[in-house]
Amino acid sequence: MLLLRTFLIFSAFIISRKCFAQTSPDSLYIRQIFDEALTNGQSYKNLDYLSNKIGGRLSGSPEAEKAVQWSKQLMESYKFDKVYLQEVMVPHWVRGAKEKASIQSSKSKVEVPICALGGSVGTGKTALTAPIIEVKTLDELKALGRSKVQGKIVFFNRPMDPRRVSTFEAYSGAGDQRRQGPSEAAKLGAVGVVVRSLNLFQDDLPHTGSLRYDETVPKIPAAAISTNGADKLSQMLQADPNLNFSYEMHCETLPEVKSYNVIGELRGSEKPNEIIAVGGHLDSWDLADGAHDDGTGCTQSIEVLRIFKNLNYRPKRTIRAVMFMNEENGVRGGRKYAELAKANQEKHVAAIESDAGGFTPRGFGIVAEPSKINAISKWKPLLSPYGLHDIGLGHAGTDIEPLAEVDKNAALIGFTPDSQRYFQYHHASNDTFDKVNKRELELGGASMAALIYLLDKYGL
Amino acid sequence: MLLLRTFLIFSAFIISRKCFAQTSPDSLYIRQIFDEALTNGQSYKNLDYLSNKIGGRLSGSPEAEKAVQWSKQLMESYKFDKVYLQEVMVPHWVRGAKEKASIQSSKSKVEVPICALGGSVGTGKTALTAPIIEVKTLDELKALGRSKVQGKIVFFNRPMDPRRVSTFEAYSGAGDQRRQGPSEAAKLGAVGVVVRSLNLFQDDLPHTGSLRYDETVPKIPAAAISTNGADKLSQMLQADPNLNFSYEMHCETLPEVKSYNVIGELRGSEKPNEIIAVGGHLDSWDLADGAHDDGTGCTQSIEVLRIFKNLNYRPKRTIRAVMFMNEENGVRGGRKYAELAKANQEKHVAAIESDAGGFTPRGFGIVAEPSKINAISKWKPLLSPYGLHDIGLGHAGTDIEPLAEVDKNAALIGFTPDSQRYFQYHHASNDTFDKVNKRELELGGASMAALIYLLDKYGL
Repeated sequence: MLLLRTFLIFSAFIISRKCFAQTSPDSLYIRQIFDEALTNGQSYKNLDYLSNKIGGRLSGSPEAEKAVQWSKQLMESYKFDKVYLQEVMVPHWVRGAKEKASIQSSKSKVEVPICALGGSVGTGKTALTAPIIEVKTLDELKALGRSKVQGKIVFFNRPMDPRRVSTFEAYSGAGDQRRQGPSEAAKLGAVGVVVRSLNLFQDDLPHTGSLRYDETVPKIPAAAISTNGADKLSQMLQADPNLNFSYEMHCETLPEVKSYNVIGELRGSEKPNEIIAVGGHLDSWDLADGAHDDGTGCTQSIEVLRIFKNLNYRPKRTIRAVMFMNEENGVRGGRKYAELAKANQEKHVAAIESDAGGFTPRGFGIVAEPSKINAISKWKPLLSPYGLHDIGLGHAGTDIEPLAEVDKNAALIGFTPDSQRYFQYHHASNDTFDKVNKRELELGGASMAALIYLLDKYGL
Repeated sequence: MLLLRTFLIFSAFIISRKCFAQTSPDSLYIRQIFDEALTNGQSYKNLDYLSNKIGGRLSGSPEAEKAVQWSKQLMESYKFDKVYLQEVMVPHWVRGAKEKASIQSSKSKVEVPICALGGSVGTGKTALTAPIIEVKTLDELKALGRSKVQGKIVFFNRPMDPRRVSTFEAYSGAGDQRRQGPSEAAKLGAVGVVVRSLNLFQDDLPHTGSLRYDETVPKIPAAAISTNGADKLSQMLQADPNLNFSYEMHCETLPEVKSYNVIGELRGSEKPNEIIAVGGHLDSWDLADGAHDDGTGCTQSIEVLRIFKNLNYRPKRTIRAVMFMNEENGVRGGRKYAELAKANQEKHVAAIESDAGGFTPRGFGIVAEPSKINAISKWKPLLSPYGLHDIGLGHAGTDIEPLAEVDKNAALIGFTPDSQRYFQYHHASNDTFDKVNKRELELGGASMAALIYLLDKYGL
């Protein structure tokens, strides 16, 4: 690709479409928003700093504290009308020394890549070694019963379904293994759990993520194994069902730590008490920089306010960028935000979250009453020139969902980027800054700014 | 991201939408096409081979010949009804030893990354060193006139416009510098040309691409300089307009070489003389693997036929996968294909080209009479669940355009993937297999298969 003469027809078409589209003041203003993001964007530079100078920032870590201070100072440097912190206590889980694992038979020992699931207990000072049994579903586990599970390590090995075009559907369809698997196995006397990484790609990287222990059963150590490792283990079990699995994890949960949500605001000129919030989560897993999850959401949200500030936009309503703390293993920040919104009798027109990676924009998922979804959908002609076609009922965001319980009128909106690449990096050691494309990141921030411009101007 | 409970509402929505969408036989069949691509896809494995075992394959090179033989054997292994070659003579330009360049003043010498533009003459055995003068446009060059240009190297430094959401528009808007710049400069007595790489990202990689010499003026050596190098050069010229630029290029044009288009067919059961062609170009630039440009188009096109074959689909019309030779520096394969289509009195319903990278699908650009564009646009409800929203008048493809002159009724269709990442890799040394995402590649092949299914079933 490609000879330039071939663009003559195409360019003429684009120009004519542009002229048509640019006749309305709203389309012109949205064009300005995108121009600002694409020519003067700061989100990529900011994400570089957050990813490479601060790095992985699990709740309670020194890096999370650094990220709090950095994002506060950054928003102050942009001279937003108000920048402040919301104190919140967060869990403090630490991974400890790097995990080790091997598949063992009488004849061989094959090392495989694992990592502890977030929140897991460790194996103690030495490795845990036990027979291992493979299942695909929680139902299959239950059908095996205590007699076949007792004393064993349970290996959950159901892949994400590659047929789902939205990879989030595939994630949703496989996540019960990671989330409930450990305690369901413990109920039947299992001593440990290994879960196939929630990754659609075949590689050697284990993907962490939270488990949810049932407090009524013993907490057993739970690890993620890479997709290649899971296939290897499954093949070896087919050949020899009497294998042992051996793993060593030194993770532990320490006392809770004081941390913060970080908030910046542009104050509304007409209706300052009506709030439009846009956010991401400042914490990340510890295995990588957390560039896509969710450095992008944070830097894009700050960028939304920076764009408005730089365009001298005077919002009617208060526009707020929120860096939520502790999405990954507790949602304490999201809950604290909702709790304080209630205490302060705040009225949210909408809350938007970007927590699906810094990929090319596709649209917005909305949780709200149908009339509000319809109202937003009517803006499609203004948004589709920027690739924003998928606008309708959908997923909003983990950190903003607690708002639904305190402010029934708030529209909860999830920014929806393209999902194909996300789970190749999600919660794994390759979620690093180099996987983020500058333009895709910038278009995401501009997309949210465009929607917020319309929400601010017309309300819901 | 993200807690799984948050998907309850979303999943319910998706399921209900699915059930609705799957009520028509066409939507069910298109679902099967995508399922086959996403669960049993071969294009990624094939692209790995083409990129990593064969590599860069400029027309006339041994690698281009290997790619011809490999793609023929691959299609034969899939047992397509017919696999054959179309002989075509192609230019044979070679780069020679790696280029070198430096910015020189009386005090300093700063090395910068360059590469020869495709088709350029070399500098001879030694470096070409001359004063350098910067311009942004061809008009600016002409305004300078012979007195200011004679004996100098002209530095074209107009960046691609980052505000264009379609990066192809930005490419189109900057490409005259590379294409016509060398001969326009030569007309005014310039001795050489350096062009800012057509890349929206700031990095150190020069991007090659064809120039077009005007045969009435001397051919002068023309190089691309990386975007960072271009900025550096421009800054240094601001500080000291009397700099010299020095570069050494050993490229040359050798005698033409015999090569081939490679074609595979599934023969139509009802209207075998009506053809639907789908293709990409088998040649690539020499600096990298040519994974995105255009290994993807080739492997996706073969995949289209493989999908139909594996689903036991019996097409009404003949479906043809075409690997065009020599898109990059001559379009000889595309012209030969059209010439033979005319000679054989073939009737093309449509020709589809994938030559914009293996990125997530966005739609199709169509060059055809309005009634045909409307007919295709009416299939949007069947295609939009797969992210194919942008369907309408647009860019088709360099290799299929010559068909327009011999078959007025053929709809020419360009597969349109997302364009944000393309020009970061385009014609540069980083256009390698690791930049391709497996699912994005597979969705592209399935998207073309879905459209071809509809074209085959309903005609145009």
